[in-house]
Amino acid sequence: MQKNRLEAFSDGVIAIIITIMVLEMKVPHGTDLADLKPILPVFLSYVLSFIYIGIYWSNHHHLLHATHRVSGGIMWANLHLLFWLSLVPFVTGWMGENQFAALPAALYGLVLLLAGVAYLVLQRAIVARQAGDSSLASELGRDRKGKLSLVLYVVGIGLAFVSPWLAATLYALVAAMWLIPDRRLERALKEHGP
Amino acid sequence: MQKNRLEAFSDGVIAIIITIMVLEMKVPHGTDLADLKPILPVFLSYVLSFIYIGIYWSNHHHLLHATHRVSGGIMWANLHLLFWLSLVPFVTGWMGENQFAALPAALYGLVLLLAGVAYLVLQRAIVARQAGDSSLASELGRDRKGKLSLVLYVVGIGLAFVSPWLAATLYALVAAMWLIPDRRLERALKEHGP
Amino acid sequence: MQKNRLEAFSDGVIAIIITIMVLEMKVPHGTDLADLKPILPVFLSYVLSFIYIGIYWSNHHHLLHATHRVSGGIMWANLHLLFWLSLVPFVTGWMGENQFAALPAALYGLVLLLAGVAYLVLQRAIVARQAGDSSLASELGRDRKGKLSLVLYVVGIGLAFVSPWLAATLYALVAAMWLIPDRRLERALKEHGP
Amino acid sequence: MQKNRLEAFSDGVIAIIITIMVLEMKVPHGTDLADLKPILPVFLSYVLSFIYIGIYWSNHHHLLHATHRVSGGIMWANLHLLFWLSLVPFVTGWMGENQFAALPAALYGLVLLLAGVAYLVLQRAIVARQAGDSSLASELGRDRKGKLSLVLYVVGIGLAFVSPWLAATLYALVAAMWLIPDRRLERALKEHGP
Repeated sequence: MQKNRLEAFSDGVIAIIITIMVLEMKVPHGTDLADLKPILPVFLSYVLSFIYIGIYWSNHHHLLHATHRVSGGIMWANLHLLFWLSLVPFVTGWMGENQFAALPAALYGLVLLLAGVAYLVLQRAIVARQAGDSSLASELGRDRKGKLSLVLYVVGIGLAFVSPWLAATLYALVAAMWLIPDRRLERALKEHGP
Repeated sequence: MQKNRLEAFSDGVIAIIITIMVLEMKVPHGTDLADLKPILPVFLSYVLSFIYIGIYWSNHHHLLHATHRVSGGIMWANLHLLFWLSLVPFVTGWMGENQFAALPAALYGLVLLLAGVAYLVLQRAIVARQAGDSSLASELGRDRKGKLSLVLYVVGIGLAFVSPWLAATLYALVAAMWLIPDRRLERALKEHGP
Repeated sequence: MQKNRLEAFSDGVIAIIITIMVLEMKVPHGTDLADLKPILPVFLSYVLSFIYIGIYWSNHHHLLHATHRVSGGIMWANLHLLFWLSLVPFVTGWMGENQFAALPAALYGLVLLLAGVAYLVLQRAIVARQAGDSSLASELGRDRKGKLSLVLYVVGIGLAFVSPWLAATLYALVAAMWLIPDRRLERALKEHGP
Repeated sequence: MQKNRLEAFSDGVIAIIITIMVLEMKVPHGTDLADLKPILPVFLSYVLSFIYIGIYWSNHHHLLHATHRVSGGIMWANLHLLFWLSLVPFVTGWMGENQFAALPAALYGLVLLLAGVAYLVLQRAIVARQAGDSSLASELGRDRKGKLSLVLYVVGIGLAFVSPWLAATLYALVAAMWLIPDRRLERALKEHGP
């Protein structure tokens, strides 16, 4: 039950984040195709962020599915993750409204990096709590994809000052990498059951 | 349980979409009846969109009621539907604030079209997963109303460049067609039970 | 389960309505007490609307508690109620920002009136569906408080053109009348149990 | 079930409050580091408010976990708490946008004070209702941390007129005090079970 409420609250926050991002796409005043043009980069960054938040929701879903006990530490590690995700609408709007300028693209990557770190911390807090379920620990412990993402975000932040579009492309590639479902967790779940 | 969380998340996103649309109705500065006049088209497009989102919620509800197994593919097909629905407040605001101009009315129809396609994709992904329940597949497989709607949206998009109000009337007629409850699904549910 | 999702969706929409209203209280630019003064009427109308939405949530909660079967008609009667409630932030903002001017105060009453009618329609749709549970029907059928409220809203709308503050006071009195818990429903629930 | 819906509604409202606060961080128009500078105090007050709302959610979670019966009084005490929490985004924006000026910092403390009082009222309403569970009452009855917080908020409100930053530091210290999990409740729960 405690776990259910943690899921419900996280679902609520993630649902709001993914939806209020669209408010950054301000309704244009004219009615020509030209009036839509400045919105295109905002739309593109909205699509990218929508996919990222979707990935986090999906992975969060899987992770909590494998969780049996919730502690105060897990609760706060979860809030910490939600905090960084809550900044995604802000950096999405900044990056989009400035046609992918250098600093906004770098800050976008920084928020992704910190959300990625927060996810790893949450994962570790959950694994530490599910004592005895060592196979889950070993499956997750390696988490190569999670660590590789952090490296790629750092590369993207650096790239942003060379070419912001290249940085955005790299962020999109990391997202593509995550769209492939996390077979490790699925396997662990199948073997040990929820 | 997996399914419950998918429903809860979708409910959250749809609830937010249907509610933040009202934020596009900006509070006027004057206090005369004349100050409310420019808000009338915004109000009308709000009513239309409210009904559309209500229909999607209701049909989504029925569709997931008939779903037994949730896969990664269904999860992403669902997020894809939510993505197009999340653009409804934007096109509602654009169409309403410009007194149903041609391009905004066409874009409104385009978002409806893409949401309709996304719904069919989700429906197909769910039917494919409920193997053995062939009667549900055959009931849904025909889905004449869903396909007819897509055709009417395309007609509406074309009509928008002739008469935006005619296009809006067509969108309203499609909504009216959907307000009649989906007897096929209800029959399938009654026969095979949830 | 169907009922649970109807409750969850309604809770979501009502939670968003009650919370986004605060966005109408725009952060002032100065930092003096005088800068807060124009916000006072916005704050007062926010308090009134918060209480009204709270009352609707509480009564909706009781009403659905007594509901056993949900039909398509109930679903749409519920969405109809949510539609009028979704306009409360708009009229709250208009009334508050214009220091309780005549037309905004009348429109506020009109939205309360239509929400009140929508609630009675929902109540009737639910009673019609719970066949055999005639005691619940007779308990609710009389619903003097609901009908008296409608009359008082109409009086308030008229009063708004004489004295908007008097109208607002009347709306506040109707709210006070509802704060007293609905003993009829509580009695019916106790006798017939959910 | 009644309790579940109270939790779900509270979760919804708290999730929205914690997320819409980020909308007060307006996307800057330039793309230089200097353009981010005026956002820094808004960001800092956002972090502080995020932690406060997180603490309220966590404590609210524990409190309702220990609740067996929900009455109309508890429902309204809960809405009263949500009302003061709903003002947090407003005072957060005002304090942040004015670089922690005196009056905004004092009003921020006032809203924290009234939310703290509302929490104690809710706690008392819940304890009064769980008759017979006297150990829970005695555990909560003392609630030194809750009462100390109220005193510190009052000190902070006074301090705001001397040094707003000192007031903000005090508010942060109170938050830090609450981050330590409420061992009393956890002990009571362990002994008497939910």
